[in-house]
Amino acid sequence: MGERMERVAIIGASMTQFGQREEWICELLVEAGVACLEDGGVDPAAIEHLYVSNMASGEFEGQTGIMNALAHDLDLLPAYAQRVDQTSSSGGAGMYAAWQSVASGASEMTLLVGGEKMTHKTTAESTDVIASITHPCEYKHGLTLPSFAGLTARHYLERFDAPRESLAKVAVKNHKNGVDNPHAQFQKEVDLETVLESPVIADPLRLYDFCPITDGSAALLFCPESVAKEYTDEYAVVSGIAGATDTHVVHERPDPTIMAGVVESGAAAYEMSGYGPEDIDVAELHDMFTILEFLQMEGLGFADQGEAWMHVEEGRTDRESELPINTSGGLKSKGHPLGASGVAQGVEIYEQLVGEAGPRQVDAEVGLCCNVGGFGNCVITTIMEAAA
Amino acid sequence: MGERMERVAIIGASMTQFGQREEWICELLVEAGVACLEDGGVDPAAIEHLYVSNMASGEFEGQTGIMNALAHDLDLLPAYAQRVDQTSSSGGAGMYAAWQSVASGASEMTLLVGGEKMTHKTTAESTDVIASITHPCEYKHGLTLPSFAGLTARHYLERFDAPRESLAKVAVKNHKNGVDNPHAQFQKEVDLETVLESPVIADPLRLYDFCPITDGSAALLFCPESVAKEYTDEYAVVSGIAGATDTHVVHERPDPTIMAGVVESGAAAYEMSGYGPEDIDVAELHDMFTILEFLQMEGLGFADQGEAWMHVEEGRTDRESELPINTSGGLKSKGHPLGASGVAQGVEIYEQLVGEAGPRQVDAEVGLCCNVGGFGNCVITTIMEAAA
Repeated sequence: MGERMERVAIIGASMTQFGQREEWICELLVEAGVACLEDGGVDPAAIEHLYVSNMASGEFEGQTGIMNALAHDLDLLPAYAQRVDQTSSSGGAGMYAAWQSVASGASEMTLLVGGEKMTHKTTAESTDVIASITHPCEYKHGLTLPSFAGLTARHYLERFDAPRESLAKVAVKNHKNGVDNPHAQFQKEVDLETVLESPVIADPLRLYDFCPITDGSAALLFCPESVAKEYTDEYAVVSGIAGATDTHVVHERPDPTIMAGVVESGAAAYEMSGYGPEDIDVAELHDMFTILEFLQMEGLGFADQGEAWMHVEEGRTDRESELPINTSGGLKSKGHPLGASGVAQGVEIYEQLVGEAGPRQVDAEVGLCCNVGGFGNCVITTIMEAAA
Repeated sequence: MGERMERVAIIGASMTQFGQREEWICELLVEAGVACLEDGGVDPAAIEHLYVSNMASGEFEGQTGIMNALAHDLDLLPAYAQRVDQTSSSGGAGMYAAWQSVASGASEMTLLVGGEKMTHKTTAESTDVIASITHPCEYKHGLTLPSFAGLTARHYLERFDAPRESLAKVAVKNHKNGVDNPHAQFQKEVDLETVLESPVIADPLRLYDFCPITDGSAALLFCPESVAKEYTDEYAVVSGIAGATDTHVVHERPDPTIMAGVVESGAAAYEMSGYGPEDIDVAELHDMFTILEFLQMEGLGFADQGEAWMHVEEGRTDRESELPINTSGGLKSKGHPLGASGVAQGVEIYEQLVGEAGPRQVDAEVGLCCNVGGFGNCVITTIMEAAA
């Protein structure tokens, strides 16, 4: 395909309050979209493409066509509008779609809005919608995503002789980070005992090893770097972005502690960016379950296989450490409105790179986010850097 | 964004039998995917990106994550896989996503598979899923897509003094074309009387003014032109492709006979391709309702406003005429499995351009397809040409 064209920049970001919201999906998307346009100082008429990351507005609310509704409500017409679905990684897939729209020359200004409205359903109903991504051969045996997480956690702890407490410390760390995120669903610390004594969900994992069910929306603005410079000096650049798919049937995977989608998408994103794990200053990982933070740390080369737990035990992923992970609070404390989560990861990394993270601010030139769909079925890794 | 990179080619195509199928969505997608890889002579390992166009597998079958399942079943791992939803124009949006994936340099070989499984639901249930794209302010008054079609048809006939028969002749023409399409749901002619005497659905439109409810899948292979040449001399090139959005609330549109999404996406696709309406040799239009074929002919510049009906009356869109429209049989006779339809339009134009349309073959160097979501809410226009 010849030379890569100019780099793709991110010039604006927003997220709504995450948590239990009264608004329906379209209103949540509008709220994030308006705030993002304002943050980027971009006129609605400048938007050429709109992508909406959302897994299941049809199942959750009986409403489809939400990209069309959003284009209309934000006054973007006749902008192109499309919905991106990759289950829980729809947000990351939306970043990839937005990147492609700009990199291909199809759009000079792309708005990405991710969102999901879930809390009006019961936990059982929501879990069932999410579980509908699993293969029938596993689903019929009761294997939902929490079940897979429990099985994998047990395997990991036993095989690598990791203490149960190390998993709990992921939750403690991310809740601590979430205290400083005004948009997080839970802005309160939890202590180790609270996590370890919470109700069992999928043994050995307990309530506080799981992210909550959440309503919310997040947004980002993408454009060519030359266009970005017309708006601001403070922007981020997408240095590398790639996605990969793992087996749809989880039990076909050769090693349950290796998430091939993470490894493959990470390797491709590193190669595209020219950076390696040692260059990453801050990362947002998909901690839907605490065990996933370990698996992603290892798959992305932040720790050797079976050793991520030691990094967490030693505080090497705390906010003040060498590689802060989930400074936003992660899915664990910020919440996990499916289609919004990958976008919100991007929002956090963007804000860290442009110095807008407030009390969560760390010293970072290069950041990474990893968004996981299903139980690692589809994964997007994105690497961003601050504008030089 | 500097110079456009090399052109994006299409090197393979397939569609399953459309109609009432016993298979579930994942099986239909696999059937089209396997046939397309075989048609293009492409090894599964060569696929870098997979896009699945589908509106509502979650609502119709309680199954999500179908892109992941398909990547797995076609042995494409670790290829990137994502679902594209733009309601009834998901197939066209999938062509745009596939084009962007290649044009951006993200993928050197992209497989697009569109599909929908609908006939296991009642017509009322399917109509309700489709109607969930409409704005609540209209839906609560009973305005489904067939209702909009009836209102628009009445307005068009009265305003432009067009005979009711001219609409019926769209159905007659498309059914006649469908006789020669072995994959069409209906391979039989209907006469004018049958259309005009069929049951009223949304006055003045009758049963035969509507496309059927259909199961089916279709697929296309996209790659850079340099890669295409390694596989074949007989390929098509995407000359122009663009999408546009119209108001989400239909009654806000200034003129009910002008589909702004068609006009805008058509104008952009023409500009990108360097071709105009007069250069198009064959076209597939989204005849979900007969009236839509008139509105698209006018929006795309094939006829002046209010005059498309005359072209149809005079046979100027018949297969043997200057501008054959819907040589495949159109949605009307081929069927309309939502996510598959836009892809199937692309399959027909591709086959016409590479000379593989069998008894439906017309003389064509440049072809166009127009895929419509909602009641013109979102529209994709694609222009292809035969490899020089």
